[in-house]
Amino acid sequence: MENEKVYVFGHKNPDTDSICSSMLHELLSKKNGGECVEARRLGNINKETQYVLNYLGMESPKLLEKVEPGQKVVLVDHNEFNQSVEGIKDADIIEVVDHHRICNFETSVPIHYTARPYGCTSTIFYEILKITGAKVEKVEAILMLSAIISDTLLLKSPTTTEQDKIAVEELGKIADIDVNEYGLNMLKAGTNLDDFSEQELVNLDAKLVDKDGKKFVIAQINTVNIPDVLKRQQKLEEAINQEIQNKDLQLFVLAITDILNSNSQIIAIGEKANCVEQAFGKKLENNMIFLEGVVSRKKQLLPPIDKNV
Amino acid sequence: MENEKVYVFGHKNPDTDSICSSMLHELLSKKNGGECVEARRLGNINKETQYVLNYLGMESPKLLEKVEPGQKVVLVDHNEFNQSVEGIKDADIIEVVDHHRICNFETSVPIHYTARPYGCTSTIFYEILKITGAKVEKVEAILMLSAIISDTLLLKSPTTTEQDKIAVEELGKIADIDVNEYGLNMLKAGTNLDDFSEQELVNLDAKLVDKDGKKFVIAQINTVNIPDVLKRQQKLEEAINQEIQNKDLQLFVLAITDILNSNSQIIAIGEKANCVEQAFGKKLENNMIFLEGVVSRKKQLLPPIDKNV
Repeated sequence: MENEKVYVFGHKNPDTDSICSSMLHELLSKKNGGECVEARRLGNINKETQYVLNYLGMESPKLLEKVEPGQKVVLVDHNEFNQSVEGIKDADIIEVVDHHRICNFETSVPIHYTARPYGCTSTIFYEILKITGAKVEKVEAILMLSAIISDTLLLKSPTTTEQDKIAVEELGKIADIDVNEYGLNMLKAGTNLDDFSEQELVNLDAKLVDKDGKKFVIAQINTVNIPDVLKRQQKLEEAINQEIQNKDLQLFVLAITDILNSNSQIIAIGEKANCVEQAFGKKLENNMIFLEGVVSRKKQLLPPIDKNV
Repeated sequence: MENEKVYVFGHKNPDTDSICSSMLHELLSKKNGGECVEARRLGNINKETQYVLNYLGMESPKLLEKVEPGQKVVLVDHNEFNQSVEGIKDADIIEVVDHHRICNFETSVPIHYTARPYGCTSTIFYEILKITGAKVEKVEAILMLSAIISDTLLLKSPTTTEQDKIAVEELGKIADIDVNEYGLNMLKAGTNLDDFSEQELVNLDAKLVDKDGKKFVIAQINTVNIPDVLKRQQKLEEAINQEIQNKDLQLFVLAITDILNSNSQIIAIGEKANCVEQAFGKKLENNMIFLEGVVSRKKQLLPPIDKNV
């Protein structure tokens, strides 16, 4: 029945973890008799995720634009309402599986909530499957593997935990693939930015943070060639200024991350741009700061910026 | 080292689940090499919990009055900051295990969070032990059993879930005790209210809810004889009015719950007392409404009152 459906989805601007963890949850639910569980997405599939779907020959989940009051939902890879679907406040959230901090989240009744401070949501799923002794199918292994490779940049990001490493090693065997080769191809597929307008680029993987009414965005683009992206700096800044105006932001930070060498060039614009200077102890030059060794928004960008805004 | 200590504790006005789950967490951590984990309590031990401690011949956890910034803590049986220890906002919360709704809670970094919509925190612990195949010791079984009996009123409260029933059955065998006999003795031990002043009674198990600045309290007293408690109505109301004044409350609800017959007499006082009338579709008479079949604050009192405040 339509009204019995349960939608499972990740955050807006979905990344590979958001899509793969949703699809995995649907697969696992169906194996356990949960026919009504359906993976959805809150935005366009990025090129990295498309690589995974092509590899598996699977369709992407359908777009979910909003939910009706009382709609049963499962959130993966996020919990903050402002990163979730329109209407989430009045939805019936029955479960959350996530690896982010808990913030801007509340429920009126007790629910299932499983958070672990790992590098990826899929690592949590794998740990649960392992503890319960469930058999992991090859397609499930590839979904989880892809999500973990994406979130940890092939285990090189500082967000990587021991649990992620164990999961990648064991899932690689189940999937029976060369993890390094598959992972590099997948990550590189995600860095082809030519087809995107500047407006699309600054929204590709953008997280909005609302801190007591002060709103700022930290967006991230992965690349294998920072100078190549910076050729578009002027137009990127125009797009950022447009976002600031449209969303009434006090700060917009765009991190252009070199996934091969693990550095980020950041562009910071807005009335609170000086917070970024304080956060990293460096002066903005031409609206930019270069951050060596910085690749993780969650671990290396958000905390110092959040502290100084 | 002192600064390496991790404190694990339940909510203010600790009940049997808050104390037993904290003690259990300490025992389990020590078995797994976590020598630094120490159970604490945020208030006086009630008589029901004292019965459990006497039965086991165990000392109660030490009182914890506040925590310093950065102190590592584990929260069990609660998550809302206003039900937690003084200083919680600046503590380093590393884990939460809880069966309540998630509200007034946030962290700046990802943490371990395990919530399940069961009748008791200890049921979650038991489920984890069972899934992981860990051996459950007799003392651990009695701690969990006591907590579940307390929270579910011997599986009679509507908060009782299938998981609680399974846990009680299996833990009863491990503990090798007559669950009904032990449970009734434990519950009855908690209903001897003679030693308490009226001020103590209205604070014995009181939960403060802050709803966008509107503050109200729902307190609960368990008894086997409601008329006996009502002999003290006038003085109870004086104590309630004092609480309203001291804490700037808009409503104070005291539920006097008959744990044998599963009914509650409630006393509602405050400028928003009419919300209680709307919540239950009954008129207050002499500040009281009798609610048949109502024993659970979480499931039967909080949601309708919260909705109407």
